[in-house]
Amino acid sequence: MDTAIAEIERGGRVESRHAGTAVVVDADGDVVFALGDIALPTYPRSAVKAFLALPLVESGAAERLGLDDEELALACASHNGEPAHVTVAARMLGRAGRNVACLECGTHWPTNADAAHALARSGGEPNALHNNCSGKHAGFVCLACDQEQDLAGYIHPAHPIMREVTAALADVTDAAHGEDNRGIDGCSIPTYAIPMRALAHGFARFGTGHGLGRERARAAARLRTAVANAPFMVGGSGRFDTVLMQALGSAVFSKMGAEGIMAASLPEQGLGIAVKCHDGAPRAAEVAMATLLMRFLGPEARDHTVLRDLATHDIRNWNGMTVGRVRAAPFI
Amino acid sequence: MDTAIAEIERGGRVESRHAGTAVVVDADGDVVFALGDIALPTYPRSAVKAFLALPLVESGAAERLGLDDEELALACASHNGEPAHVTVAARMLGRAGRNVACLECGTHWPTNADAAHALARSGGEPNALHNNCSGKHAGFVCLACDQEQDLAGYIHPAHPIMREVTAALADVTDAAHGEDNRGIDGCSIPTYAIPMRALAHGFARFGTGHGLGRERARAAARLRTAVANAPFMVGGSGRFDTVLMQALGSAVFSKMGAEGIMAASLPEQGLGIAVKCHDGAPRAAEVAMATLLMRFLGPEARDHTVLRDLATHDIRNWNGMTVGRVRAAPFI
Repeated sequence: MDTAIAEIERGGRVESRHAGTAVVVDADGDVVFALGDIALPTYPRSAVKAFLALPLVESGAAERLGLDDEELALACASHNGEPAHVTVAARMLGRAGRNVACLECGTHWPTNADAAHALARSGGEPNALHNNCSGKHAGFVCLACDQEQDLAGYIHPAHPIMREVTAALADVTDAAHGEDNRGIDGCSIPTYAIPMRALAHGFARFGTGHGLGRERARAAARLRTAVANAPFMVGGSGRFDTVLMQALGSAVFSKMGAEGIMAASLPEQGLGIAVKCHDGAPRAAEVAMATLLMRFLGPEARDHTVLRDLATHDIRNWNGMTVGRVRAAPFI
Repeated sequence: MDTAIAEIERGGRVESRHAGTAVVVDADGDVVFALGDIALPTYPRSAVKAFLALPLVESGAAERLGLDDEELALACASHNGEPAHVTVAARMLGRAGRNVACLECGTHWPTNADAAHALARSGGEPNALHNNCSGKHAGFVCLACDQEQDLAGYIHPAHPIMREVTAALADVTDAAHGEDNRGIDGCSIPTYAIPMRALAHGFARFGTGHGLGRERARAAARLRTAVANAPFMVGGSGRFDTVLMQALGSAVFSKMGAEGIMAASLPEQGLGIAVKCHDGAPRAAEVAMATLLMRFLGPEARDHTVLRDLATHDIRNWNGMTVGRVRAAPFI
C-alpha cells in the first residue's frame, strides 16, 4: 500500500520519495495492472471534469449554444489563468447570455506565475474567470441556461445541474456518489471519493464509449476531440496534460486533479489509468503516469521524447545548474 | 520507516497522508524521541543556515561591520522576498561595501505572492536580493570582505569561505561533510546529507552552547537573540518560523529547509528536534514540528493558541469555506 511511485534525487542520493496507488483497467473493468489498494475510496477532484461536461454535450446544449473546441476543452480544464483561458471562459458565458458575475467558483490569481505577474503589471486584479475551474463552471452555466434553470446556488449538491452532472459521474464510473462519500472541492462543488479502480474504469469507458450508451459515448468522443484539438485550453503553458496532448494528440486523454491525482484514457488500447500520489504531490503522480503511458500506449510511445521527458526530468536551481532529478520509482 | 506524520482530511476522510522521520535529542546526543530511521543521511538544506552564520559572528566580522539583529536574522533566513527583506539584504551588502552584483545565489520572484504581485505592479523585476537565500549569501559576502578574501566563486566547496562555514557545520553536528555526501542547493552552495539524529544534536547544541566551545557558543546565543528580536526577517508574512517565534520569542529557535525539513532548538529544555517529511512537503513537516514542540516545550506551550493553530489548521477553498484540515498524524 505504500510502494514508492516516484523519487527525487540530489547529489546521487534519494532526497525525497513518494508513495502511491496506480491502476490500469480495460473497458470491461478488468484490472490489467495494479499497485497498492485500488479499492480505497479517493477523491478524483478535477480529474473527472470531462465526465462533468458530458451532460452539456449529450443534452444538445453545447451544439445549440455553438460551443467550439476551445470552449469544450476549457469545460474539462484546470487552467493556468493565462489570457487565452480567461478570454475563452468569458466567451462561453457570453454564449449563455451571461458574464463573470454568475460564476460561483471564487477568485484566485492565475496559477501560472508569468500570467500572474503580467496581470499585476497591467494594474489588474484577478476575477472568477482566472479561477482554474472557470471553464467547468462556465459549462455548468451554459447547461443551466439552456435548460432555463435558475442559476443561483448551482454549486450545491441539491441543485438540478449538480444532480445531473453527479448522475453522469456515477454512471461513467459505476460508483456510488452520495452524502457518505462527499467532500467539497476548491471551487465549492462536491467531490466524491470513489475507488481508484472505478476511476480508471470510468476513463477506459470515456476513451472507448464502451458501456456508456450511444449519446453519452458520442459526447465523450466529442469532448476528447475538442481537447485533442485545443490542448492548451485544458491546462496551459508547461502543464503536463497540455504538453502530453500537444505531443500525442488524440492517442491519449489525460487530466490531473488536486492532491496528486492523474487519470487517462487510452482509446486505441481500450484502457483507463488512474494514479494517486498518497501525499498529494503532482510531481510524483505525473512521472508515474508518464511511465505507465510509456508502457501501455504501445511501442512508439516508449521512445517518444516528450513522454520520456515527462517521466524523468532534471531539477535546475536558480543559476540554471542541474542539481537533481525527478523520476518514477521502479514500480512497474 | 514509513510512519505517517501528517494527514490531510476532506469530507471526513483522509485524502492524503505524509510519512516522515522525527527525532528529539538532548545536548549530549542522547535520543529522547525517535520515529523512523534517524540514522538515514538527509540533506538539511536551509535548516542549517544559522550554523552557516556562526563564523560571521564568532570571527568578530559581524561586530566589526556593525550588523544588527535584523541583519543577523536575515543571515539565518529563507525569506519571502518582501520589501523589508530586500532592504535589509541590501543594507548588509552595504556594510561590506558591496551591492547586489556580487551575489551568486541567482534570482527568483518573491516567494510571497503578495510581494510578487506588488513588485510586478510597480513595474519592477526581481533581482538576487529577492532570492530567499540572499541574507545568507550577504552573510558570506560580509565574512569574505572582512577577511579581505577574493569574493568570486564563494559558492563553490573549495572557496575559503565555503570551507570555513562547512567546517562549522561539521563541528556543530559532529557529522562528516565531504564529497561523498554532497549535493548542490537551490542557491548553488553545497548541502551535505547527514543523519537526522546529527541534525537534531546540532540544534540541541546550538540552543544550549553545550559542546561548542566558548566563542562558538556565544555566537550561537547571539544569533538566537537576533532571530528572537527580529523573527520577521527569518521567513516573513505567514511563515511557520516567523509566526512561531513571534509568539514564543527566545523559547524556541526554529528553521525550515526545502523538501520537508524542519529543525528546532529548545534552549530551556536543552533539546534539539529534527523532522523530515519523506515526500518533501512543508505542510506535513510543519504540523509534525508544532506537535513535537507542544510536547517538549513544557506545559504552557501545549495550550498556546499559536502553537495549536500551527499543529492543526483548516483548509479553506476559494469561497472561504472550510473544506478540510491539515493535522499531525497520531505519531507521538
